[in-house]
Amino acid sequence: MAELVGNVLVGQSGGPTAVINASVAGVVAEALNHSCIEEIYGSLNGVLGILQEDLIDLASESQQTIRGLRHTPGAALGTCRYKLKKQQDFERVLEVFKAHNIRYFFYAGGNDSQDTADKISKLAQQQGYELRVIGVPKTIDNDLPVTDHCPGYGSVVKYICTTVRELACDNEAMGQNDLVSILEVMGRNAGWIAAGSALAKRRDHPHDPPHIILLPEVAFSTEKFIEDVKRVLKREKYCMIVVGEGLIDADGNYVSAAETTDAFGHAQLGGAGDFLKGLVEQHMPGTKARVARLGIAQRAAAHGGSKTDSDEAFLAGQAAVRAAIDGETDKMVTLLRGDGDHYTCETGLAPLSDIANGVKKLPREWINEDGVSMNFQFLRYAQPLIQGETPVPYENGLPAFAKLDKVRVDKLLPGYEL
Amino acid sequence: MAELVGNVLVGQSGGPTAVINASVAGVVAEALNHSCIEEIYGSLNGVLGILQEDLIDLASESQQTIRGLRHTPGAALGTCRYKLKKQQDFERVLEVFKAHNIRYFFYAGGNDSQDTADKISKLAQQQGYELRVIGVPKTIDNDLPVTDHCPGYGSVVKYICTTVRELACDNEAMGQNDLVSILEVMGRNAGWIAAGSALAKRRDHPHDPPHIILLPEVAFSTEKFIEDVKRVLKREKYCMIVVGEGLIDADGNYVSAAETTDAFGHAQLGGAGDFLKGLVEQHMPGTKARVARLGIAQRAAAHGGSKTDSDEAFLAGQAAVRAAIDGETDKMVTLLRGDGDHYTCETGLAPLSDIANGVKKLPREWINEDGVSMNFQFLRYAQPLIQGETPVPYENGLPAFAKLDKVRVDKLLPGYEL
Repeated sequence: MAELVGNVLVGQSGGPTAVINASVAGVVAEALNHSCIEEIYGSLNGVLGILQEDLIDLASESQQTIRGLRHTPGAALGTCRYKLKKQQDFERVLEVFKAHNIRYFFYAGGNDSQDTADKISKLAQQQGYELRVIGVPKTIDNDLPVTDHCPGYGSVVKYICTTVRELACDNEAMGQNDLVSILEVMGRNAGWIAAGSALAKRRDHPHDPPHIILLPEVAFSTEKFIEDVKRVLKREKYCMIVVGEGLIDADGNYVSAAETTDAFGHAQLGGAGDFLKGLVEQHMPGTKARVARLGIAQRAAAHGGSKTDSDEAFLAGQAAVRAAIDGETDKMVTLLRGDGDHYTCETGLAPLSDIANGVKKLPREWINEDGVSMNFQFLRYAQPLIQGETPVPYENGLPAFAKLDKVRVDKLLPGYEL
Repeated sequence: MAELVGNVLVGQSGGPTAVINASVAGVVAEALNHSCIEEIYGSLNGVLGILQEDLIDLASESQQTIRGLRHTPGAALGTCRYKLKKQQDFERVLEVFKAHNIRYFFYAGGNDSQDTADKISKLAQQQGYELRVIGVPKTIDNDLPVTDHCPGYGSVVKYICTTVRELACDNEAMGQNDLVSILEVMGRNAGWIAAGSALAKRRDHPHDPPHIILLPEVAFSTEKFIEDVKRVLKREKYCMIVVGEGLIDADGNYVSAAETTDAFGHAQLGGAGDFLKGLVEQHMPGTKARVARLGIAQRAAAHGGSKTDSDEAFLAGQAAVRAAIDGETDKMVTLLRGDGDHYTCETGLAPLSDIANGVKKLPREWINEDGVSMNFQFLRYAQPLIQGETPVPYENGLPAFAKLDKVRVDKLLPGYEL
């Protein structure tokens, strides 16, 4: 295979995570090893930066900054939820790529982003423009198909489990069999994040919190919910509930109906916790309910992040570059778990079209029959993903995060109307 | 002064913090040094445990457990918001003290708790029962008078500032001059906690988030608020707001009116963040608002806690015992800041009656004229309190917290009707 000489472009898309920057660090670190790669550019705000030719020179960032990305949350390049709609948008992307001799495109994102990458790749092939497109998985939602798990998931779960353990200490002190403590977590379509909170239980302590985990996979019933809470409060000083924001009722409607939708048409959620608080207060007079809604803080919590997760995110970025150098295109890096008892993880590849817009549901058989707790299969799956603590440096009492200098690449094309 | 031989009782009261257990560890560690102290008891759930004679033997806990309390959040002895009301309640407390030869009583808590301790002390004096009562300051609210600051405050501020920095990374990536990010924090009567978020700004970066800090000390005006947000969004990709739950309007009413009150008659708050989100959406169409409400998680976040705070909480517990041994009574331990440029902290004592039910307001002159940011005097005050990271041991990916064995002390009295 002939060596493809040209420039790299890396972008980030969708909701940021605690480790998506680690993937960019992996891309940059690996790209520097290959002489066929001439420039390493980043696009600001995902595809928006491509359309508008807002590119930065990542090779000019200090090594310290790139290393700092490994523990910096958010998306250092900026991200977007803009969806390429018109054919014209895709044509523009290729124009920009051609103008800047982009031959390697790495896109870190979730389902929608991999779909975008797939379409760009297909168009390049149609036009006979040699371009290698490799997606890098990213989503706290852990809902990408094919890959064993997604970078971002382990860190959010670790942070939530830490919070559950800490809340438990507080709730245990305050509760008199009359306290319902509700932690609302993210997870629009799948209960992976809420399910992950089950790791907070100590081994062989099934009565440890969270006592009730409410998942979108299990249709919500008010009657059963109140029964479950009452049963727990007979036994425990408090009842801790972890609820995924995407909780739905038997008719498939979100229990906390949303008024707005995002650019992809997804309902913007929030409020499942307050909904449950209302039910408790209505059906169980004298019971106190308290809600914590971590919101965006949960996906940005690098200080409580998983080293395993951060390292795998970095590895996925490196693997994307290696795959492209090896001639692969139109694929996403996947994480493959070894078969042995001891957890190992290496990377693989899957066609972008297999990933695009797919959703990996939490397996129903990993949920216990009670519908509100997870079984050993799930715990065995998730446990390795939260191991190790992301080493975050502190300065003057607070985490020191990296910030890119963002040296702009000269624009070569006329402007583009979005 | 004659040596007072007898038993110690330590209790915890009010809302738990990340470091109130460190104070108990300080009491136990110091009490073991003094031969005039025979037994070291803990009362379960504050004064409730005294009334009901629910006492445990703290000396029988392992050293490992007591050491573990230094990084364990919550209140390991349990706490309560029960307020001793009737004279009969106070008489009962003394009966229990006499029955168990309690001669040293240490009570860790906030304003109300110090008031309770004061009343118990006064009654003992009236009855001629020799009892030394020393309060240990505790409150994330930092609103106790006399003491320079309160154990619990530094940790909650450090955690919130960490969250602000992390949210900033995420918001910076997502915002397009159209994102309002709201972090609702605790603080019923005073804005100490919300004010503390100002430490998240890097030195000489006044435009760093939080861009707007809303304090109960500054009457809220919708008009000014919307103007402030618009001004920030002209300059920044996002506007981060930290709001104290106790935000009030010009008439002195909570902007988010509460329906319920706790046992002390305090309004139970929550929802100032959602209130602001509503205003933004109403007055600034096209602007997205996101709310994170950390709830109880913020006061329990030992994993993000301040080592300075945890060490001072331990020190306060030790100092309480030393003061009592030295013959002091009816006092609370205070934290005294040294005069030098380099931060130092030692303990002092103040009469409980000076503390009881007092409230230390955030000095108005520490708030900038814009009403939504803090000046250098505040930063100089608060900065030292968040230094150092509480060393929390991790096991299998999660913090390992201590749990007391709670070996019960035999009851010697008939039951007591609450």
